[in-house]
Amino acid sequence: MLEQVMQRLEDDAPHALNRLKQFLAIPSVSTDPAYVTDVHRGAEWVAARLNECGLDAQVLPTGGGNGHPVVLAHTAADAAPPTAPRILFYGHYDVQPPDPLDLWQTPPFEPHIRNDAIYARGASDDKGQLCCFLEAVRAWSNTTGNFPCHLAVLIEGEEEMGSIHLPPFLEQHKDKLAADVVLISDTPMWDTPGQPDAVVSITYGLRGLVYFDIQLHGPNRDLHSGMYGGTVANPATILTRILGRLFDEQRRVTIPGFYDGVQPPTDDEHRRWSQLDFNERAYLDAVGAAEPYGEAEYNTLERRWVRPSCDINGLYGGYGAAGAKTIIPSFAGAKVSFRLVPNQDPARIADTFEQWLRSHDAGGCRWQITRHGQAHPVVAPSDSPHIAAAARAIEACSGKKPVLIREGASIPIVADFKCILGLDSLLIGFGRTDDRIHAPNEKFNLASFTLGCRTHAALLAELAQSAHGSS
Amino acid sequence: MLEQVMQRLEDDAPHALNRLKQFLAIPSVSTDPAYVTDVHRGAEWVAARLNECGLDAQVLPTGGGNGHPVVLAHTAADAAPPTAPRILFYGHYDVQPPDPLDLWQTPPFEPHIRNDAIYARGASDDKGQLCCFLEAVRAWSNTTGNFPCHLAVLIEGEEEMGSIHLPPFLEQHKDKLAADVVLISDTPMWDTPGQPDAVVSITYGLRGLVYFDIQLHGPNRDLHSGMYGGTVANPATILTRILGRLFDEQRRVTIPGFYDGVQPPTDDEHRRWSQLDFNERAYLDAVGAAEPYGEAEYNTLERRWVRPSCDINGLYGGYGAAGAKTIIPSFAGAKVSFRLVPNQDPARIADTFEQWLRSHDAGGCRWQITRHGQAHPVVAPSDSPHIAAAARAIEACSGKKPVLIREGASIPIVADFKCILGLDSLLIGFGRTDDRIHAPNEKFNLASFTLGCRTHAALLAELAQSAHGSS
Repeated sequence: MLEQVMQRLEDDAPHALNRLKQFLAIPSVSTDPAYVTDVHRGAEWVAARLNECGLDAQVLPTGGGNGHPVVLAHTAADAAPPTAPRILFYGHYDVQPPDPLDLWQTPPFEPHIRNDAIYARGASDDKGQLCCFLEAVRAWSNTTGNFPCHLAVLIEGEEEMGSIHLPPFLEQHKDKLAADVVLISDTPMWDTPGQPDAVVSITYGLRGLVYFDIQLHGPNRDLHSGMYGGTVANPATILTRILGRLFDEQRRVTIPGFYDGVQPPTDDEHRRWSQLDFNERAYLDAVGAAEPYGEAEYNTLERRWVRPSCDINGLYGGYGAAGAKTIIPSFAGAKVSFRLVPNQDPARIADTFEQWLRSHDAGGCRWQITRHGQAHPVVAPSDSPHIAAAARAIEACSGKKPVLIREGASIPIVADFKCILGLDSLLIGFGRTDDRIHAPNEKFNLASFTLGCRTHAALLAELAQSAHGSS
Repeated sequence: MLEQVMQRLEDDAPHALNRLKQFLAIPSVSTDPAYVTDVHRGAEWVAARLNECGLDAQVLPTGGGNGHPVVLAHTAADAAPPTAPRILFYGHYDVQPPDPLDLWQTPPFEPHIRNDAIYARGASDDKGQLCCFLEAVRAWSNTTGNFPCHLAVLIEGEEEMGSIHLPPFLEQHKDKLAADVVLISDTPMWDTPGQPDAVVSITYGLRGLVYFDIQLHGPNRDLHSGMYGGTVANPATILTRILGRLFDEQRRVTIPGFYDGVQPPTDDEHRRWSQLDFNERAYLDAVGAAEPYGEAEYNTLERRWVRPSCDINGLYGGYGAAGAKTIIPSFAGAKVSFRLVPNQDPARIADTFEQWLRSHDAGGCRWQITRHGQAHPVVAPSDSPHIAAAARAIEACSGKKPVLIREGASIPIVADFKCILGLDSLLIGFGRTDDRIHAPNEKFNLASFTLGCRTHAALLAELAQSAHGSS
C-alpha cells in the first residue's frame, strides 16, 4: 500500500510543486494589517486543499474575531481503523514580512525555482514544510481513499506574531483536538553550515523563556556630569554594576536557586550527541565568534540544549549617538532574558530574578521592571514508540537514521500542547539551516520537499504499525 | 576716582541695559550654520563697543577662516601707568541654540524684562556677564579717559561648540596676549536652589576630563538568543561585567594608579567650605536624588570639587525599543568619562583605562575604543594677590565677602590659558544657578547686571592697587 502511495507522490510531483507555488504566491503576512485579506485567503487555501483530500476542514475565528483564523480539519471517523492512532498535525500558514524588499533577487511572493530550490517568503517557514504533510495526506487519500491514522489538523495564522490567540483556542476546542501525539514540521535538518550533507532531525526538547525589561531611574533629568559627577547615584553605572554580577567566574548565573532541579544530559543523550559529528568550529565561524563560550563543565551542544542560559538582549539609556555628551543619565535600561530547561518554572525564575535585582544597593535609584512573555521548557520522552516510528520512516525515505536532538530556542505553542492538551510534540524538520528564514531570499530545497512528502507519507504508516504492534 | 566711575555707571544704567538688549537681539548661535551672518554681527557688535571705549579692537579670523571670528582688543600703551598690571579678559559672544522654541514665554532673541530680570538666549551665558565687563570699561573710559590696568580683551564665538579653534589662536597670538592674569565671568554665584540669597563666587579650580566611547564587538550579526544563548560570548553581558568592576565597595574607581598624586583638600579649603552653609538636602532635592552618593570619606562638596569621578554617560547596543526581541547583540557600547583633578594627567588616565579594559577576559569579543576630547584639570593658587584684590572689590560692591570655590565641571580653555600662555584664571561669577542657561527662558537678574558692572569697575582699581602695593 505504501508503495502505491509513494508512486502516487512521484507521479503527482509536478502538481504538488504547482500547489506549493500557488500557496507561496499568497502574501499572508500576519503582523501587517495591510495583508489581512491575504491572510484570510491563506486560511481558505489550506482548508480547500484539506477538503479536497476528504477531510472536514473549517476556517474558524480566533480572539472573538480579532485574531487571524485557524484552519481545523479532521478525517472522518471511518476513514481510519478504530484502533488507529490519533495524530494532531500543527503548522502555520502565515509568514514573516518580506522586507527589505530590495535585497530579494526575485519578488518574495512570486515563487521562482533556481539552484534546485524554490525561492519565496515562507518557502521553508512554514508553507513548504506544511505542504509536505498536505501532499502526503493527498497521496494517501487519492491512493486508498482512507488513512492509516485518525488525523486532526490545526493550521494557525499567527505563529509569526507569537500565537497570541492560540492557547484560548486550544482550551475552547479541547474535545476536537484529542490525540496521541502532536506532529510539527517547522524546524531545520541537522547540517553543518556550508556542507551539502544533512540528516532529518527529530526535536523532542525545547528551552523555555522569561524576558525582562528592567530600568533603573535616578535623577529627575539628565545632569551635567561635571557639576554632579561623584556626588549623586548614576543609574547607568549602578545598572552595569548589578548586571555585572549576573555571572560568576565559571560563567554560571549567580541568582540563588537558578539551577535548582536542572537535570544533566542523560547517558543516551551523551551517547547520541557525541555521535553527531558536530562541527563546533564551523558553528562558531558561521556567526563570527572567536571562541566557544559558556559554562566550563559542558560542551557547546549541552550548553545550547540542556543548560539554561541568560542573555542581555539590549542596553539603553543616556547618550548613545556619535561623539560626546557629558551627562549623568536620568535612567538606564536593559533587556534581560533567560532560556529555561525542565524543572525551572518560568514564574519562579522571574520572581527570583526580580528579588535578586532588588537585593542590591541601588544608591537610592528606583527600579521599573516589566515582564514580556514567558514560555515553559518542554522535553518529551526520547524513547517513545512515536519517535521510533518516525525514525523508521525517516531512515526508509532518506537512507539515513535521523538525529534525536533538543533545541535551545522556545516554541511556546509546544508547551501549550503539553499544558492544555497533555500532548507531547514530535518536531520533524526538513528545512535547512541556510534556508534564510525571516530573511530575504528565503528558499526551500526541492530535495527537502520531496523528502518531506515521502517521509510524512511513510510516517503515517509507521505510526499505525507501531500502535498496532504495541496494542 | 572710583567714586566717579560708580556714579557714571549709575547715571548710564538705562543706556547700559539698552546696549545689553541690542546685543541679546543678535542670534549669534555658533553651532548652527544658518546663523553664520548673525555670528559675525555678534563679533562686530563687541568690537564696536570696545572701540567706543578707546580700545583698539579687531575682528580676527580663526581656523584659517573656517572658524568663527575672535574679537581681540587692547588698551593703548599709554592708557594705563607703565607699572599697572596686565589683565586678559576672556568671554564669548556666541550662544546656545534656542530650541525648543515653543517653551519660551517670549521669543529668545527679543529680550524682555519681567520679574526684575532680562529674558533672552545668552542673557546669563555669556552676553549679560560679558556686558558687565564692557560697561565697567566704558565707565572708566568715559570718566577718566584711561584705565587702572593694561587690558587685553579676547572674546570668542565658538565657546558653545567647544572652542575648537581657540588654542591655535592663542599659540599664534601669544605676544598680544601677554598678561598677569586672566579674568572670566561665565559662572554662577553661590546660592541655594529656591533661595533668594547669593554670594559672588571666585572659582580658582576646575576638574579635567577624558571621555571615551567604548564598543565591544562579538558575533558578526545579531543572533537568535534561543539558538545561540549560552554558547557564544554576548558583548552586552561582557560589557556590563567589565564596567561593573569599575568601582569597589567603597565606590572608589578600581583602575590601577587612578588616584596617584591626588591631593586632599587643604586646611584652608576645609575651613572655607565648612563655612559655606552648603544645603546638601536642597542640592539633592533639586535633581530628585534620594540620597548623597559617592566616596565614603568625603562630603558632597569635596566629591564635587577635589575628588576625581567616573560616570557612564550612556549605554547602547542590541534591542532597546518597547517589548521583546530575543537576540544576542552583535555589539554593545558605552560612553564613559572621567573628571580629573590636579596630578592626574588626562593622557595617562586615558591610557590606563584602556589598558584596564583590555586586561579583562572579553570572551573573544573585540574592543573598539574612541577618545573624545580631553581637558587638563587646573587649580590656581587661592591666596594670590589677584584673588585678594577681587575679594576686596566684591565685598565693597556687594556688602558680602565672596566665596572661594572650585568647580566640578571642566572649562578646557582655562587649561589652555595655563598651558599655552602660562596664566592663571580668575572666574568671577554673577550668574545665578536658576538662570536656565542652555534651556528655554534663560534670564539674567537686573541685580546681577548692576552688581557685575560695579564689581568689574572696582576690580580694575583693586588690581592696580594690589600690584602697586606688592611692587
